[in-house]
Amino acid sequence: MFLAQRSLCFLSGRAEFLKTISSSKILGFSTSAKMSLKFTNAKRIEGLDKNVWIEFTKLAADPSVVNLGQGFPDISPPIYVKEELSKIAAIDSLNQYTRGFGHPSLVKALSYLYEKLYQKQIDSNKEVLVTVGAYGSLFNAIQALVDEGDEVIIIVPFYDCYEPMVRMAGATPVFIPLRSKPVDGKKWSSSDWTLDPQELESKFNSKTKAIILNTPHNPLGKVYNKEELQVIADLCIKYDTLCISDEVYEWLVYSGNKHLKIATLPGMWERTITIGSAGKTFSVTGWKLGWSIGPTHLIKHLQTVQQNTIYTCATPLQEALAQAFWIDMKRMDDPECYFNSLPKELEVKRDRIAHLLESVGLKPIVPDGGYFIIADVSSLDPDLSDMKNNEPYDYKFVKWMTKHKKLSAIPVSAFCNSETKSQFEKFVRFCFIKKDSTLDAAEEIIKAWSVQKSWYVQNGLMFLLDDLGWNCYLVLPPAGL
Amino acid sequence: MFLAQRSLCFLSGRAEFLKTISSSKILGFSTSAKMSLKFTNAKRIEGLDKNVWIEFTKLAADPSVVNLGQGFPDISPPIYVKEELSKIAAIDSLNQYTRGFGHPSLVKALSYLYEKLYQKQIDSNKEVLVTVGAYGSLFNAIQALVDEGDEVIIIVPFYDCYEPMVRMAGATPVFIPLRSKPVDGKKWSSSDWTLDPQELESKFNSKTKAIILNTPHNPLGKVYNKEELQVIADLCIKYDTLCISDEVYEWLVYSGNKHLKIATLPGMWERTITIGSAGKTFSVTGWKLGWSIGPTHLIKHLQTVQQNTIYTCATPLQEALAQAFWIDMKRMDDPECYFNSLPKELEVKRDRIAHLLESVGLKPIVPDGGYFIIADVSSLDPDLSDMKNNEPYDYKFVKWMTKHKKLSAIPVSAFCNSETKSQFEKFVRFCFIKKDSTLDAAEEIIKAWSVQKSWYVQNGLMFLLDDLGWNCYLVLPPAGL
Repeated sequence: MFLAQRSLCFLSGRAEFLKTISSSKILGFSTSAKMSLKFTNAKRIEGLDKNVWIEFTKLAADPSVVNLGQGFPDISPPIYVKEELSKIAAIDSLNQYTRGFGHPSLVKALSYLYEKLYQKQIDSNKEVLVTVGAYGSLFNAIQALVDEGDEVIIIVPFYDCYEPMVRMAGATPVFIPLRSKPVDGKKWSSSDWTLDPQELESKFNSKTKAIILNTPHNPLGKVYNKEELQVIADLCIKYDTLCISDEVYEWLVYSGNKHLKIATLPGMWERTITIGSAGKTFSVTGWKLGWSIGPTHLIKHLQTVQQNTIYTCATPLQEALAQAFWIDMKRMDDPECYFNSLPKELEVKRDRIAHLLESVGLKPIVPDGGYFIIADVSSLDPDLSDMKNNEPYDYKFVKWMTKHKKLSAIPVSAFCNSETKSQFEKFVRFCFIKKDSTLDAAEEIIKAWSVQKSWYVQNGLMFLLDDLGWNCYLVLPPAGL
Repeated sequence: MFLAQRSLCFLSGRAEFLKTISSSKILGFSTSAKMSLKFTNAKRIEGLDKNVWIEFTKLAADPSVVNLGQGFPDISPPIYVKEELSKIAAIDSLNQYTRGFGHPSLVKALSYLYEKLYQKQIDSNKEVLVTVGAYGSLFNAIQALVDEGDEVIIIVPFYDCYEPMVRMAGATPVFIPLRSKPVDGKKWSSSDWTLDPQELESKFNSKTKAIILNTPHNPLGKVYNKEELQVIADLCIKYDTLCISDEVYEWLVYSGNKHLKIATLPGMWERTITIGSAGKTFSVTGWKLGWSIGPTHLIKHLQTVQQNTIYTCATPLQEALAQAFWIDMKRMDDPECYFNSLPKELEVKRDRIAHLLESVGLKPIVPDGGYFIIADVSSLDPDLSDMKNNEPYDYKFVKWMTKHKKLSAIPVSAFCNSETKSQFEKFVRFCFIKKDSTLDAAEEIIKAWSVQKSWYVQNGLMFLLDDLGWNCYLVLPPAGL
């Protein structure tokens, strides 16, 4: 019998294969060489064709894959939300165009809700704009307000579209990373990741048109506290800068945390666009409805973009959303109100996945909000030699995991600019707004992975190769045999 | 008794009141003077804040107004279309994100349909893009392909968003009007309006990136015939120019006409983006779904814009639309197929409204396609002196008609650039995809208007004032009394 021991012969890696160019690519080149110059893209989108969602959603489309990747729920949306849409679909007039800047009943519902949260009157026609998702709000805000030559501060890691949207507007993104405090021995929390106020101030100058804030944060799950928001607000006021505040996870904060709106700090309403999402609020990401709230003098420019890009959003979805809001706004202090019940339900899932990741030796960053958890996965150390080599570690890791382990996630370096990718490329993001059976399946995969081993024979010697295909142990006979 | 006779004292107009600036406007100026420069709009949208739909939809929102304005049906959409949406709303997964460039079942349905129409294979993933309405397709195409400094040819009159979309891309729109042949005594048809080939060629040069074609045409209802399309195609090829072909009314053509796709002419597929609309195809304008069909080398750039603007369209609507397409694609030769039954239904309405307009002395341009009819309304000649004076005649006319006659329409100069507005400002567009009761109400208003008179007394003399408030007749006693 053999006894496995940590080997002296730690194999540092496998040989890399020469990259080959596929014949279809060669064909592609020869075709485009013949092509008219008029067929080329406009300069504004040059280099903006890569997109993490398109790449990783395609991989996760295989039904045998357990998908903890893209941020959408596989739990059921509230039954009354779906029922409202079913009912409204039957009403003729609600299948036709509605007001371009937001269906009247929806902007009324939104202003009613946000008046409570802001403790101020909100003009439903002038200070609210309904958009094609929060994504559409971000695009409208940036196109409306950011000019060529402007600078926009983006906090790293960031929801991936911020950077190409700023570049598409001809502006320069200026990046500042969240940095982690030392957390020796303690649990790692999203609140350990903070901005350095001096470093932040160094990014502001007279060209700074806006800073994009995201709280609760995707992918870290950080919920900015009042002091942190005040630092940002003070700099916005000092440097006369706008704030685009992406608050799509506003209801999803966990025990001990509270979501605060930067627009409610003194002097900030007039310079802030706050962005919300129906998809995140009611677990219907496929409805693609979002909204911007802000002062008339800013919202009117977003309206101009809207009327020259998509004109109006889908009517039946807007009416159903308005009805859903009224149902929950009438019971906001009730634990059954979805704004209260969903975070309670998700907190259990967060704790479960954090515990799972810890149990296999990973160190997750436990989020205070949102529905993602990120973890440094480098200790799993699989054999990635058959993955494309010109990609960050986490891209290769997730592709490998999706292919070999049938578990998908999202690489965190997708949320970084090219200079900071290396700081985050050991991290992977898992989405936990998933039903228990999905989390069970993920748990099974992760647990099996951490114990599974296989044999490897070379030169008459036997090696124990872990299933990650990377760590290799020389298997020696027990002493004395 | 008195007998009305044409008066000698034709009153040429009413005194204009001095224009006053409202206090709110003064306040507006003083507030914005104090405002931060950072609150101003980006240059790309400078001057693009006016929009005919927003202005006239607001006016027509009064429920007492008979709305023949904005182009949406008040007839019921097909029952199976609404039922599909009702059913799909109950399916959890169809309330979540789908593929960004188009829901898989929808792009499959679209490629199946258009393969028949184009008589060529269409790659559902690479040659089809689902967008937020045809509006979103237009925006994507222009942002993707048109650069600062480019020129884009636009045929006047044109669907109003073409111009600001081209300007937002930093390009120069180059306009060419459709011109009418003499039609003495005959009915005026949309086919009497044509492009002059020499004049059209004079608009092309090396800077011309694209021409925007619209067939069937809004607002004229013109359906371009093969010879006319060939002239455009030849110029596109000669000057190596793209064609953005807005064909949202593709199914709505009337007896004796046939819709042809310019992309099917030799050499045109590779340089054409063809745009379609669910709203127009299935009478559900509120669903805001459209699509672009074209070669991969162009569609891929539109996809890049989509992924950086809205990312994806609403899933439940896309799935319902796919199902609706399958229902009708299985019975395309059947008169009950909606693609066949809707134009039949609309042709009756077109004939009715054309007859109505003629019966009150107007000369409508009878459309060969689409669901609009335009007519020169200047002979109605109402008293517009209380309307804002800095607007084209048709704007004042429609506002007056909406206010005083409770009938709304759309001014045709809204479909013109500033230089050609005067050519079309006597025309008003009426939408006829309306149920019989709506057309009855419109008929009642128009007929009453043409006969209604009222009395007017001044200096002891009695005048007969027509209800338009403009033509004034001195009323004399019958001769001999």
